[in-house]
Amino acid sequence: MNFSSKLLENAVYEFSKLPGIGKKTALRLVLNLLNKDQADVDNFGNSIMKLRREIKKCSVCHNISDDEVCDICNSNKREKQIICVVEDTRDVMAIENTAQYFGLYHVLGGLISPMDGVGPSDLYIDSLVKRVANSEVKEVILALSANMEGDTTLFYLFKRLKDFQIPITTIARGIAFGGELEYADEITLGRSIVTRVPYEASLSK
Amino acid sequence: MNFSSKLLENAVYEFSKLPGIGKKTALRLVLNLLNKDQADVDNFGNSIMKLRREIKKCSVCHNISDDEVCDICNSNKREKQIICVVEDTRDVMAIENTAQYFGLYHVLGGLISPMDGVGPSDLYIDSLVKRVANSEVKEVILALSANMEGDTTLFYLFKRLKDFQIPITTIARGIAFGGELEYADEITLGRSIVTRVPYEASLSK
Repeated sequence: MNFSSKLLENAVYEFSKLPGIGKKTALRLVLNLLNKDQADVDNFGNSIMKLRREIKKCSVCHNISDDEVCDICNSNKREKQIICVVEDTRDVMAIENTAQYFGLYHVLGGLISPMDGVGPSDLYIDSLVKRVANSEVKEVILALSANMEGDTTLFYLFKRLKDFQIPITTIARGIAFGGELEYADEITLGRSIVTRVPYEASLSK
Repeated sequence: MNFSSKLLENAVYEFSKLPGIGKKTALRLVLNLLNKDQADVDNFGNSIMKLRREIKKCSVCHNISDDEVCDICNSNKREKQIICVVEDTRDVMAIENTAQYFGLYHVLGGLISPMDGVGPSDLYIDSLVKRVANSEVKEVILALSANMEGDTTLFYLFKRLKDFQIPITTIARGIAFGGELEYADEITLGRSIVTRVPYEASLSK
Protein backbone atom coordinates (compact mmCIF):
# COMPACT_ATOMS: atom_id res chain seq x y z
CA MET A 1 0.00 0.00 0.00
CA ASN A 2 1.16 3.53 -0.78
CA PHE A 3 0.61 5.59 2.34
CA SER A 4 0.46 9.35 2.07
CA SER A 5 1.92 9.66 5.57
CA LYS A 6 4.61 7.86 7.56
CA LEU A 7 2.64 8.34 10.78
CA LEU A 8 -0.38 6.71 9.19
CA GLU A 9 1.71 3.85 7.85
CA ASN A 10 3.23 3.25 11.28
CA ALA A 11 -0.14 3.19 13.04
CA VAL A 12 -1.58 0.81 10.42
CA TYR A 13 1.48 -1.43 10.81
CA GLU A 14 0.99 -1.59 14.59
CA PHE A 15 -2.71 -2.45 14.23
CA SER A 16 -2.05 -5.10 11.59
CA LYS A 17 0.10 -7.03 14.07
CA LEU A 18 -3.07 -7.91 15.99
CA PRO A 19 -4.53 -11.37 15.31
CA GLY A 20 -7.11 -11.43 12.53
CA ILE A 21 -6.47 -7.81 11.53
CA GLY A 22 -5.11 -7.38 8.00
CA LYS A 23 -3.75 -4.20 6.44
CA LYS A 24 -7.09 -3.08 5.05
CA THR A 25 -8.95 -3.60 8.31
CA ALA A 26 -6.12 -1.88 10.18
CA LEU A 27 -6.41 1.13 7.87
CA ARG A 28 -10.17 1.27 8.42
CA LEU A 29 -9.70 1.19 12.21
CA VAL A 30 -6.95 3.82 12.18
CA LEU A 31 -8.95 6.19 9.94
CA ASN A 32 -11.90 5.75 12.28
CA LEU A 33 -9.76 6.71 15.28
CA LEU A 34 -8.38 9.66 13.31
CA ASN A 35 -11.90 11.10 13.07
CA LYS A 36 -12.32 11.06 16.83
CA ASP A 37 -11.33 13.71 19.37
CA GLN A 38 -7.79 13.71 20.69
CA ALA A 39 -9.13 12.90 24.18
CA ASP A 40 -10.91 9.79 22.92
CA VAL A 41 -7.82 8.61 21.09
CA ASP A 42 -5.70 9.21 24.21
CA ASN A 43 -8.19 7.20 26.27
CA PHE A 44 -7.88 4.39 23.78
CA GLY A 45 -4.08 4.35 23.70
CA ASN A 46 -3.65 4.83 27.44
CA SER A 47 -6.19 2.17 28.39
CA ILE A 48 -4.13 -0.57 26.79
CA MET A 49 -0.73 0.74 27.97
CA LYS A 50 -2.05 1.14 31.52
CA LEU A 51 -3.54 -2.35 31.41
CA ARG A 52 -0.23 -3.87 30.33
CA ARG A 53 1.67 -1.92 33.00
CA GLU A 54 -0.61 -2.44 36.01
CA ILE A 55 -2.33 -5.75 35.42
CA LYS A 56 -1.52 -8.57 37.84
CA LYS A 57 -2.13 -12.26 37.87
CA CYS A 58 -3.83 -13.68 40.94
CA SER A 59 -1.13 -15.41 42.99
CA VAL A 60 -3.50 -18.30 43.73
CA CYS A 61 -5.33 -19.10 40.48
CA HIS A 62 -3.27 -17.00 37.99
CA ASN A 63 -6.37 -15.36 36.55
CA ILE A 64 -6.00 -11.75 35.35
CA SER A 65 -6.70 -9.46 38.28
CA ASP A 66 -6.31 -5.89 39.53
CA ASP A 67 -5.11 -7.16 42.92
CA GLU A 68 -2.65 -9.67 44.34
CA VAL A 69 -5.47 -12.16 44.91
CA CYS A 70 -8.49 -12.09 42.61
CA ASP A 71 -12.10 -11.50 43.66
CA ILE A 72 -13.09 -15.13 43.14
CA CYS A 73 -10.27 -16.55 45.26
CA ASN A 74 -10.99 -13.88 47.90
CA SER A 75 -14.73 -14.48 48.03
CA ASN A 76 -16.35 -16.14 51.02
CA LYS A 77 -19.24 -17.37 48.93
CA ARG A 78 -17.22 -19.80 46.78
CA GLU A 79 -16.67 -23.47 47.52
CA LYS A 80 -12.94 -23.53 48.16
CA GLN A 81 -12.63 -27.31 47.89
CA ILE A 82 -13.47 -27.46 44.20
CA ILE A 83 -10.98 -26.29 41.55
CA CYS A 84 -11.91 -25.90 37.91
CA VAL A 85 -8.83 -25.97 35.64
CA VAL A 86 -9.10 -23.83 32.47
CA GLU A 87 -6.84 -22.61 29.68
CA ASP A 88 -7.19 -18.84 30.04
CA THR A 89 -9.19 -15.98 31.45
CA ARG A 90 -11.76 -16.14 28.66
CA ASP A 91 -12.79 -19.60 29.85
CA VAL A 92 -13.23 -18.27 33.38
CA MET A 93 -15.51 -15.56 32.02
CA ALA A 94 -17.49 -18.06 29.95
CA ILE A 95 -18.05 -20.37 32.94
CA GLU A 96 -18.87 -17.45 35.25
CA ASN A 97 -21.50 -16.34 32.74
CA THR A 98 -23.32 -19.67 33.11
CA ALA A 99 -23.86 -18.94 36.85
CA GLN A 100 -23.71 -22.71 37.38
CA TYR A 101 -20.33 -23.04 39.07
CA PHE A 102 -19.38 -21.76 42.51
CA GLY A 103 -15.96 -23.25 43.14
CA LEU A 104 -12.51 -21.77 42.45
CA TYR A 105 -10.49 -21.73 39.25
CA HIS A 106 -6.97 -22.47 38.15
CA VAL A 107 -5.81 -20.76 34.96
CA LEU A 108 -3.08 -22.75 33.16
CA GLY A 109 -2.13 -19.91 30.82
CA GLY A 110 -2.26 -22.17 27.77
CA LEU A 111 -2.30 -25.81 26.70
CA ILE A 112 0.54 -28.26 26.16
CA SER A 113 1.43 -28.01 22.48
CA PRO A 114 4.72 -29.51 21.28
CA MET A 115 4.03 -28.00 17.83
CA ASP A 116 4.16 -24.48 19.31
CA GLY A 117 6.95 -25.35 21.73
CA VAL A 118 4.70 -25.13 24.80
CA GLY A 119 5.62 -27.75 27.39
CA PRO A 120 4.22 -28.46 30.90
CA SER A 121 6.86 -26.21 32.48
CA ASP A 122 5.53 -23.21 30.52
CA LEU A 123 2.13 -23.54 32.17
CA TYR A 124 0.93 -23.11 35.76
CA ILE A 125 0.81 -26.87 36.35
CA ASP A 126 3.28 -27.17 39.24
CA SER A 127 1.34 -24.55 41.17
CA LEU A 128 -1.87 -26.51 40.55
CA VAL A 129 -0.28 -29.67 41.96
CA LYS A 130 0.93 -27.66 44.94
CA ARG A 131 -2.56 -26.22 45.52
CA VAL A 132 -4.08 -29.69 45.44
CA ALA A 133 -1.37 -31.06 47.76
CA ASN A 134 -1.59 -28.26 50.33
CA SER A 135 -5.33 -27.80 50.72
CA GLU A 136 -8.34 -29.99 51.29
CA VAL A 137 -9.44 -30.12 47.68
CA LYS A 138 -12.41 -32.44 47.14
CA GLU A 139 -12.61 -32.35 43.34
CA VAL A 140 -10.65 -31.10 40.35
CA ILE A 141 -12.70 -30.32 37.23
CA LEU A 142 -10.70 -30.23 34.01
CA ALA A 143 -12.55 -27.84 31.66
CA LEU A 144 -10.26 -27.76 28.62
CA SER A 145 -10.97 -27.44 24.89
CA ALA A 146 -11.80 -30.65 23.04
CA ASN A 147 -8.86 -30.64 20.65
CA MET A 148 -5.46 -32.29 20.47
CA GLU A 149 -3.74 -29.80 22.77
CA GLY A 150 -6.61 -30.04 25.24
CA ASP A 151 -6.50 -33.84 25.27
CA THR A 152 -2.72 -33.89 25.70
CA THR A 153 -2.99 -31.49 28.62
CA LEU A 154 -5.87 -33.48 30.13
CA PHE A 155 -3.80 -36.66 29.96
CA TYR A 156 -0.77 -35.00 31.54
CA LEU A 157 -2.78 -33.36 34.32
CA PHE A 158 -4.52 -36.64 35.11
CA LYS A 159 -1.16 -38.35 35.45
CA ARG A 160 0.10 -35.64 37.81
CA LEU A 161 -3.05 -35.54 39.95
CA LYS A 162 -4.23 -39.13 40.16
CA ASP A 163 -2.11 -40.01 43.22
CA PHE A 164 -3.99 -37.51 45.38
CA GLN A 165 -6.99 -39.85 45.53
CA ILE A 166 -9.57 -37.14 44.78
CA PRO A 167 -12.20 -37.19 42.03
CA ILE A 168 -10.87 -35.74 38.78
CA THR A 169 -13.70 -34.93 36.39
CA THR A 170 -14.00 -33.39 32.93
CA ILE A 171 -16.90 -31.36 31.56
CA ALA A 172 -19.55 -33.39 29.69
CA ARG A 173 -19.17 -33.71 25.91
CA GLY A 174 -22.14 -34.26 23.64
CA ILE A 175 -24.66 -32.68 21.32
CA ALA A 176 -25.14 -29.01 22.19
CA PHE A 177 -28.57 -27.79 23.32
CA GLY A 178 -30.34 -26.57 20.22
CA GLY A 179 -27.94 -28.62 18.10
CA GLU A 180 -29.43 -30.72 15.31
CA LEU A 181 -28.35 -34.35 15.06
CA GLU A 182 -27.87 -34.36 11.31
CA TYR A 183 -25.25 -31.60 11.50
CA ALA A 184 -23.32 -33.05 14.43
CA ASP A 185 -19.90 -34.53 13.66
CA GLU A 186 -19.60 -38.32 13.85
CA ILE A 187 -17.26 -38.46 16.83
CA THR A 188 -19.45 -36.26 19.01
CA LEU A 189 -22.63 -38.07 17.97
CA GLY A 190 -21.06 -41.51 18.39
CA ARG A 191 -19.68 -40.70 21.83
CA SER A 192 -22.96 -39.13 22.92
CA ILE A 193 -24.72 -42.42 22.19
CA VAL A 194 -22.09 -44.49 24.01
CA THR A 195 -22.15 -42.16 27.05
CA ARG A 196 -25.96 -41.79 27.11
CA VAL A 197 -27.57 -40.81 30.42
CA PRO A 198 -30.90 -41.72 32.05
CA TYR A 199 -33.65 -39.34 30.97
CA GLU A 200 -34.20 -38.06 34.52
CA ALA A 201 -30.52 -37.11 34.83
CA SER A 202 -30.66 -35.10 31.61
CA LEU A 203 -33.27 -32.68 32.97
CA SER A 204 -31.72 -29.49 34.24
CA LYS A 205 -32.52 -28.83 37.88
CA MET B 1 -19.42 -10.18 30.40
CA ASN B 2 -17.99 -10.60 33.89
CA PHE B 3 -14.49 -9.17 33.84
CA SER B 4 -12.02 -10.20 36.51
CA SER B 5 -10.34 -6.80 36.26
CA LYS B 6 -11.52 -3.20 35.82
CA LEU B 7 -8.43 -2.38 33.76
CA LEU B 8 -9.22 -5.24 31.41
CA GLU B 9 -12.85 -4.20 31.16
CA ASN B 10 -11.86 -0.64 30.33
CA ALA B 11 -9.42 -1.68 27.59
CA VAL B 12 -12.00 -4.04 26.07
CA TYR B 13 -14.59 -1.25 26.17
CA GLU B 14 -12.24 1.11 24.32
CA PHE B 15 -11.49 -1.50 21.63
CA SER B 16 -15.13 -2.41 21.18
CA LYS B 17 -15.89 1.19 20.14
CA LEU B 18 -14.00 0.55 16.89
CA PRO B 19 -16.14 -0.26 13.84
CA GLY B 20 -16.76 -3.97 13.33
CA ILE B 21 -15.15 -4.93 16.65
CA GLY B 22 -17.54 -6.58 19.11
CA LYS B 23 -16.89 -7.36 22.77
CA LYS B 24 -15.53 -10.84 22.09
CA THR B 25 -13.14 -9.71 19.37
CA ALA B 26 -12.06 -6.79 21.55
CA LEU B 27 -11.26 -9.20 24.39
CA ARG B 28 -9.24 -11.39 22.03
CA LEU B 29 -7.22 -8.39 20.80
CA VAL B 30 -6.63 -7.05 24.30
CA LEU B 31 -5.49 -10.44 25.64
CA ASN B 32 -3.15 -10.73 22.67
CA LEU B 33 -1.61 -7.34 23.49
CA LEU B 34 -1.36 -8.35 27.14
CA ASN B 35 0.95 -11.19 26.16
CA LYS B 36 3.37 -8.81 24.43
CA ASP B 37 6.27 -6.88 25.93
CA GLN B 38 5.56 -3.52 27.54
CA ALA B 39 7.66 -1.81 24.83
CA ASP B 40 5.54 -3.33 22.05
CA VAL B 41 2.32 -2.27 23.76
CA ASP B 42 3.71 1.24 24.26
CA ASN B 43 4.60 1.40 20.57
CA PHE B 44 1.08 0.38 19.72
CA GLY B 45 -0.60 2.92 21.98
CA ASN B 46 1.76 5.77 21.15
CA SER B 47 1.58 5.21 17.38
CA ILE B 48 -2.10 6.04 17.30
CA MET B 49 -1.94 8.92 19.80
CA LYS B 50 1.00 10.45 17.91
CA LEU B 51 -0.82 10.02 14.61
CA ARG B 52 -3.89 11.81 15.94
CA ARG B 53 -1.79 14.62 17.42
CA GLU B 54 0.61 15.28 14.55
CA ILE B 55 -1.26 14.36 11.40
CA LYS B 56 -2.10 17.12 8.97
CA LYS B 57 -4.33 17.44 6.00
CA CYS B 58 -2.74 18.72 2.81
CA SER B 59 -3.83 22.35 2.40
CA VAL B 60 -4.36 21.80 -1.34
CA CYS B 61 -6.05 18.42 -1.74
CA HIS B 62 -7.01 17.67 1.93
CA ASN B 63 -5.42 14.22 1.78
CA ILE B 64 -3.83 12.92 5.01
CA SER B 65 -0.23 14.08 5.09
CA ASP B 66 2.77 14.55 7.37
CA ASP B 67 3.41 18.00 5.89
CA GLU B 68 1.51 21.17 5.04
CA VAL B 69 1.35 20.12 1.39
CA CYS B 70 1.31 16.41 0.51
CA ASP B 71 3.88 14.58 -1.63
CA ILE B 72 1.51 14.24 -4.57
CA CYS B 73 0.60 17.94 -4.70
CA ASN B 74 4.30 18.79 -4.26
CA SER B 75 5.58 16.45 -6.96
CA ASN B 76 6.94 17.79 -10.24
CA LYS B 77 6.06 14.58 -12.04
CA ARG B 78 2.28 14.90 -11.73
CA GLU B 79 -0.03 16.50 -14.26
CA LYS B 80 -1.28 19.52 -12.34
CA GLN B 81 -4.13 20.27 -14.72
CA ILE B 82 -6.10 17.12 -13.91
CA ILE B 83 -7.92 16.71 -10.61
CA CYS B 84 -9.44 13.43 -9.49
CA VAL B 85 -12.14 13.94 -6.83
CA VAL B 86 -12.46 11.12 -4.28
CA GLU B 87 -14.27 10.46 -1.01
CA ASP B 88 -11.35 9.75 1.31
CA THR B 89 -7.69 8.82 1.60
CA ARG B 90 -8.38 5.11 1.01
CA ASP B 91 -9.59 5.93 -2.49
CA VAL B 92 -6.38 7.88 -3.16
CA MET B 93 -4.38 4.83 -2.08
CA ALA B 94 -6.49 2.50 -4.24
CA ILE B 95 -6.04 4.67 -7.34
CA GLU B 96 -2.31 5.18 -6.66
CA ASN B 97 -1.95 1.39 -6.49
CA THR B 98 -3.21 1.06 -10.05
CA ALA B 99 -0.25 3.19 -11.30
CA GLN B 100 -2.57 4.41 -14.09
CA TYR B 101 -3.23 7.96 -12.93
CA PHE B 102 -0.71 10.79 -12.78
CA GLY B 103 -2.80 13.86 -12.02
CA LEU B 104 -3.66 15.44 -8.67
CA TYR B 105 -6.40 14.53 -6.21
CA HIS B 106 -9.06 16.31 -4.22
CA VAL B 107 -10.30 14.53 -1.10
CA LEU B 108 -13.88 15.51 -0.19
CA GLY B 109 -13.74 13.95 3.27
CA GLY B 110 -17.06 12.14 2.77
CA LEU B 111 -20.14 12.08 0.58
CA ILE B 112 -23.34 14.09 0.73
CA SER B 113 -25.73 12.06 2.86
CA PRO B 114 -28.88 13.73 4.21
CA MET B 115 -29.62 10.52 6.19
CA ASP B 116 -26.39 10.99 8.16
CA GLY B 117 -26.73 14.76 8.30
CA VAL B 118 -23.80 15.37 5.94
CA GLY B 119 -24.42 18.33 3.65
CA PRO B 120 -22.22 19.98 1.00
CA SER B 121 -20.85 22.46 3.55
CA ASP B 122 -19.43 19.58 5.63
CA LEU B 123 -17.22 18.50 2.73
CA TYR B 124 -14.27 20.16 0.95
CA ILE B 125 -16.42 21.19 -1.99
CA ASP B 126 -15.96 24.97 -1.85
CA SER B 127 -12.19 24.52 -1.88
CA LEU B 128 -12.54 22.27 -4.95
CA VAL B 129 -14.52 24.95 -6.76
CA LYS B 130 -11.88 27.51 -5.74
CA ARG B 131 -9.08 25.24 -7.03
CA VAL B 132 -10.84 24.84 -10.36
CA ALA B 133 -11.54 28.56 -10.61
CA ASN B 134 -8.01 29.68 -9.72
CA SER B 135 -5.87 27.32 -11.79
CA GLU B 136 -5.75 26.10 -15.34
CA VAL B 137 -7.53 22.82 -14.71
CA LYS B 138 -8.15 20.85 -17.91
CA GLU B 139 -10.28 18.03 -16.52
CA VAL B 140 -12.06 17.02 -13.34
CA ILE B 141 -12.52 13.28 -12.82
CA LEU B 142 -15.24 12.34 -10.34
CA ALA B 143 -14.23 8.96 -8.85
CA LEU B 144 -16.96 8.37 -6.27
CA SER B 145 -18.66 5.21 -5.04
CA ALA B 146 -21.59 3.95 -7.11
CA ASN B 147 -24.25 4.27 -4.44
CA MET B 148 -26.94 6.77 -3.52
CA GLU B 149 -24.59 9.07 -1.60
CA GLY B 150 -22.06 8.92 -4.42
CA ASP B 151 -24.68 9.75 -7.06
CA THR B 152 -26.06 12.64 -5.00
CA THR B 153 -22.58 14.05 -4.57
CA LEU B 154 -21.80 13.56 -8.28
CA PHE B 155 -24.94 15.45 -9.22
CA TYR B 156 -24.15 18.30 -6.84
CA LEU B 157 -20.52 18.58 -7.95
CA PHE B 158 -21.54 18.58 -11.59
CA LYS B 159 -23.94 21.45 -10.92
CA ARG B 160 -21.22 23.44 -9.15
CA LEU B 161 -18.53 22.80 -11.78
CA LYS B 162 -20.37 22.82 -15.09
CA ASP B 163 -20.04 26.59 -15.62
CA PHE B 164 -16.23 26.35 -15.80
CA GLN B 165 -16.46 24.87 -19.30
CA ILE B 166 -13.98 22.06 -18.64
CA PRO B 167 -14.55 18.34 -19.21
CA ILE B 168 -16.06 16.67 -16.14
CA THR B 169 -15.73 12.90 -16.34
CA THR B 170 -16.62 9.95 -14.13
CA ILE B 171 -14.83 6.62 -13.90
CA ALA B 172 -16.20 3.88 -16.18
CA ARG B 173 -18.83 1.55 -14.76
CA GLY B 174 -19.28 -1.98 -16.08
CA ILE B 175 -18.55 -5.64 -15.55
CA ALA B 176 -15.31 -6.07 -13.60
CA PHE B 177 -12.35 -7.85 -15.19
CA GLY B 178 -12.64 -11.49 -14.23
CA GLY B 179 -16.32 -10.94 -13.43
CA GLU B 180 -18.79 -13.51 -14.74
CA LEU B 181 -21.84 -12.21 -16.57
CA GLU B 182 -24.31 -14.52 -14.88
CA TYR B 183 -23.44 -13.17 -11.44
CA ALA B 184 -23.49 -9.49 -12.42
CA ASP B 185 -26.41 -7.43 -11.15
CA GLU B 186 -29.01 -6.35 -13.71
CA ILE B 187 -28.30 -2.62 -13.53
CA THR B 188 -24.56 -3.01 -14.12
CA LEU B 189 -25.05 -5.54 -16.91
CA GLY B 190 -27.82 -3.51 -18.56
CA ARG B 191 -25.79 -0.31 -18.45
CA SER B 192 -22.68 -2.08 -19.71
CA ILE B 193 -24.61 -3.15 -22.83
CA VAL B 194 -26.03 0.33 -23.40
CA THR B 195 -22.61 1.95 -22.95
CA ARG B 196 -20.72 -0.68 -24.99
CA VAL B 197 -17.37 0.37 -26.51
CA PRO B 198 -15.61 -0.58 -29.78
CA TYR B 199 -13.47 -3.69 -29.30
CA GLU B 200 -10.24 -1.81 -30.08
CA ALA B 201 -10.97 0.73 -27.32
CA SER B 202 -11.48 -2.03 -24.77
CA LEU B 203 -7.92 -3.32 -25.12
CA SER B 204 -5.64 -1.98 -22.43
CA LYS B 205 -2.67 -0.09 -23.83
